[in-house]
Amino acid sequence: MVRGIGISPGIIFGKAKTMIKNQVNLEKKNIEDRNEEIDRLVHAIASSKQQINEIAIKTRATIGESEAKIFEAHELILEDATLIDGIKDKINEEMVNAEYAVSVVAKQFMDIFDSMDDAYMKEKSADIKDVSDRIIRNLLGIEAWHLADNEDKVIIVAEDLTPSDTALLDKNKVLGFVTAVGGKTSHTAILARILEIPAISGIQGIMEKLHDGDDLILDGQEGIVIVNPSPDDIHDYQEKKKVYDNQLLLYKKYLNKPSITKDGKEVEIFANIGLPDDTDKVIANGAEGIGLFRTEFLFMNRKNLPTEQEQYEAYKDVATRLKGKPVVIRTLDIGGDKEVDYLHLQAELNPFLGYRAIRLCLDRKEIFMTQLRALLRASAYGNIKIMFPMISSVHELREAKQMLQEAKKALENEGILYNDTIELGMMIEVPSAAMMSDLLAKEVDFFSIGTNDLIQYMVAVDRGNEKIAHLYHEFNPGVLRMIKMVIDNAHEANIWVGMCGEAAANPYMLPLLLAMGLDEFSVCPSAVLELRYIMSKLSVDDIKSKLDTILMMAEEHAIEKYMEEYYDKHIN
Amino acid sequence: MVRGIGISPGIIFGKAKTMIKNQVNLEKKNIEDRNEEIDRLVHAIASSKQQINEIAIKTRATIGESEAKIFEAHELILEDATLIDGIKDKINEEMVNAEYAVSVVAKQFMDIFDSMDDAYMKEKSADIKDVSDRIIRNLLGIEAWHLADNEDKVIIVAEDLTPSDTALLDKNKVLGFVTAVGGKTSHTAILARILEIPAISGIQGIMEKLHDGDDLILDGQEGIVIVNPSPDDIHDYQEKKKVYDNQLLLYKKYLNKPSITKDGKEVEIFANIGLPDDTDKVIANGAEGIGLFRTEFLFMNRKNLPTEQEQYEAYKDVATRLKGKPVVIRTLDIGGDKEVDYLHLQAELNPFLGYRAIRLCLDRKEIFMTQLRALLRASAYGNIKIMFPMISSVHELREAKQMLQEAKKALENEGILYNDTIELGMMIEVPSAAMMSDLLAKEVDFFSIGTNDLIQYMVAVDRGNEKIAHLYHEFNPGVLRMIKMVIDNAHEANIWVGMCGEAAANPYMLPLLLAMGLDEFSVCPSAVLELRYIMSKLSVDDIKSKLDTILMMAEEHAIEKYMEEYYDKHIN
Repeated sequence: MVRGIGISPGIIFGKAKTMIKNQVNLEKKNIEDRNEEIDRLVHAIASSKQQINEIAIKTRATIGESEAKIFEAHELILEDATLIDGIKDKINEEMVNAEYAVSVVAKQFMDIFDSMDDAYMKEKSADIKDVSDRIIRNLLGIEAWHLADNEDKVIIVAEDLTPSDTALLDKNKVLGFVTAVGGKTSHTAILARILEIPAISGIQGIMEKLHDGDDLILDGQEGIVIVNPSPDDIHDYQEKKKVYDNQLLLYKKYLNKPSITKDGKEVEIFANIGLPDDTDKVIANGAEGIGLFRTEFLFMNRKNLPTEQEQYEAYKDVATRLKGKPVVIRTLDIGGDKEVDYLHLQAELNPFLGYRAIRLCLDRKEIFMTQLRALLRASAYGNIKIMFPMISSVHELREAKQMLQEAKKALENEGILYNDTIELGMMIEVPSAAMMSDLLAKEVDFFSIGTNDLIQYMVAVDRGNEKIAHLYHEFNPGVLRMIKMVIDNAHEANIWVGMCGEAAANPYMLPLLLAMGLDEFSVCPSAVLELRYIMSKLSVDDIKSKLDTILMMAEEHAIEKYMEEYYDKHIN
Repeated sequence: MVRGIGISPGIIFGKAKTMIKNQVNLEKKNIEDRNEEIDRLVHAIASSKQQINEIAIKTRATIGESEAKIFEAHELILEDATLIDGIKDKINEEMVNAEYAVSVVAKQFMDIFDSMDDAYMKEKSADIKDVSDRIIRNLLGIEAWHLADNEDKVIIVAEDLTPSDTALLDKNKVLGFVTAVGGKTSHTAILARILEIPAISGIQGIMEKLHDGDDLILDGQEGIVIVNPSPDDIHDYQEKKKVYDNQLLLYKKYLNKPSITKDGKEVEIFANIGLPDDTDKVIANGAEGIGLFRTEFLFMNRKNLPTEQEQYEAYKDVATRLKGKPVVIRTLDIGGDKEVDYLHLQAELNPFLGYRAIRLCLDRKEIFMTQLRALLRASAYGNIKIMFPMISSVHELREAKQMLQEAKKALENEGILYNDTIELGMMIEVPSAAMMSDLLAKEVDFFSIGTNDLIQYMVAVDRGNEKIAHLYHEFNPGVLRMIKMVIDNAHEANIWVGMCGEAAANPYMLPLLLAMGLDEFSVCPSAVLELRYIMSKLSVDDIKSKLDTILMMAEEHAIEKYMEEYYDKHIN
């Protein structure tokens, strides 16, 4: 048995097919003619661009718009002046071959991103590797690895699968894959989950442990590979697969049912989306609305601000497709850790404690006003609600509300339609806001608790920092008490309160949140049905009677264990 | 009238003396002989080192040990291999003159630090400027600017005064200074305050606004310069000066009095220190103890870890000098934003939300154990209390306590004396800890609220980030409520609770903290007497009756204004 990190769930049985990429000869050679070498580079970049563009188009058609963005970002890497000029300079100054120059300069960039100890940056490094490998292959005229036509259904075994390798996998031939490099949040993992290809990564020394032709059982949920299994193993995993498949079928039965507990308490299960086309998944999974529509996609991977019209169309599109169901749209939540060149954001020592989100919007009012106008205009076409991120004080909220008021007035003067009873809400993700949620609740129509950031600030842990990941804990008693306080304050002021962080989708957290009285859960589309199913098995009254005891427990691990046992007792 | 930032208080009258540094010719020249040029550089660095060493010695003797550290850090810059090798490489590769190479490479370093938008980093940049200017002067054989022997008492007017300029000011000749560059937290400002030289910085276009021989009034409290004042101005400021001087005399009367309010509520006013020799200031200002002895000085500006013996001696020294008065010593509070090469800390995307303080100590137990042993050994010689920084959960606290237990056991086995009833406390600076302070209070003997970090995490603002400085506000209602909750929880568990952040020394905050029942205030030594004086004018019962109203006010600015008015009514 070999263990790794399960990055895409599912149980499959198949033969291992090791994939060793064509070894690329990266010898340093001295060249004679600078211009000729730079010509070779320019041609290889052009070919790479065309190939990536084809992958983006194919991905958009067969996987989704969200995933196609990965490759649009790859195209932008090919236009990155710092990178490309760096390569040209190397050729010019050192008179070396282009493939060598690409590999050295790309390595420098990757090292910088790798050193940053942050998942987002590491993914950037993986993207550069994917693109630079492609340029080198094009320089050398080597084809990318692919399965031969006559090959059977296999489980791919490789050191690394890049996002572009993954996007091009043929589901008719590839049952699953296992790799050494990668993690749960990598682009490769995201693609595998969307493609529903079970996969495991993080297996050290994979090429020594697994060999071509080995019989494998791959459990993508648990991150386990069984090599050349015994008949007993096969029997066990066939049973497991049956349970897993049945569970998926079971969840599907809840598609058109209300989100209601065993003892009749009804809540709403909404979905989070990042792109208009994610709306399909929202509808396919039976969510009752969209609890968080992130608007950053409109601002990223481009060279200038989106216009009011562009934004209006995107918001209207989603609102229309939701046919009257609520769509909570969050205003721009961007900061110095994202690369948005045209905003000219300064590098910051602590970007998560920096100039971002509502802080940026209240400082650069023209950006904010454009978005508010677009949101209001779209509100005439569906059930849009506006939500402000990262509010830390009443003063800040009032400033933002004042801007919204001005936007409404301007539209009125221009005779443009909008919903003048549009609901306004705010994220609760900054601890000071949570501590004065009684005061803030008087100023808005709803709250949405953003647990990802709230936990981060509550325990003072950057959740991308692996060295202290153990301290970032959803069951930290201070965090749980804070969440309860916010819900109580919201209800005291007669407003509804939702949650749009990852904690909302945690099955062990669910009973606690129901007991505290959370009104709305906003989760990724694929988690909606599971949550609705679990909910139907729980009695709010029962867990409510235990809430006080749980909130007096001192250690997060004890609370988590308690909730796991509670879950197992009531669900399984 | 010209406005700037008051960086050192006091009112003075005098003539302007403009100081224009000898213009340095930094022409780029091609050189013939690499080795000769590097020899020149090496000699200039050696001379610089000797000069800075003399300044450090003089500073230690006439100003203080803490301030001398500034110049010890300057000496280390001269040993920085990246900087010095960078200069040598430039000479070697480009065949340019040493002074040009120094200026270009130093500028690169300064740009990096300046771009970081953080006071600590900006100070690092100012330090590099001070040192590199000195190397260049030594290369060119130019003397640093100084007052002629026959010059009268003057107010210096300059673009910039470096820390070394400031440390060498002759108080018999220099009444005060005004500059364009610098801020309240700069090394130059720190030196000016210790030297009690009134000063203002941040005056843009200073050389156009002020001229040699102008009559000036300088108000270092308000940051105002009156140029060629009218007889009325002179009269007004003579009155102001009288009030100011009288106030200092008034505060001095409280030196040996208890810290007690008008209506008889007694609290403790302790002092914060960063170096053993700061103890003199603690005693001179009549503090009742040390509320925060930072131990980072033992770990910084050196090349390896301090030994148990070194640490023991430093702790024992302070405890002995305090003669039985309490000394709260905080265990190591260091992280990736500080330069401590031998710890090999990784760069982090968000160091303030990173691997630091107790997190580092619980991971690198040998460092922590050495410090705990040294603290326990020193506890036999005075009233030492141990305090853990940055605790975010009960689990973490218990792990740290377990280590302390092990250290005690080890000393017992070795037959080494220590105080086995030593008090143990923790900082409350992480919001999750504040939210479960009822649980944590059962585990320690005292709390100290670290408002600097607590506010930073509560409002999610890096307090070094100027773009969002307006959001970092001591009177944020969420912060005030959190502080009250911690104090209530501490008293419920019968432990004492202090405060060691800057808020503890804010005169407008003082009535609020007294009303909430804070037991101990730990402030910089120079603020002790003013606080004791103000306290004596306040009635706790009066402000207590207003506390509920204040904590329901929605905006920090309203609360601050209310407290300013309250202060003015009762103190002035």
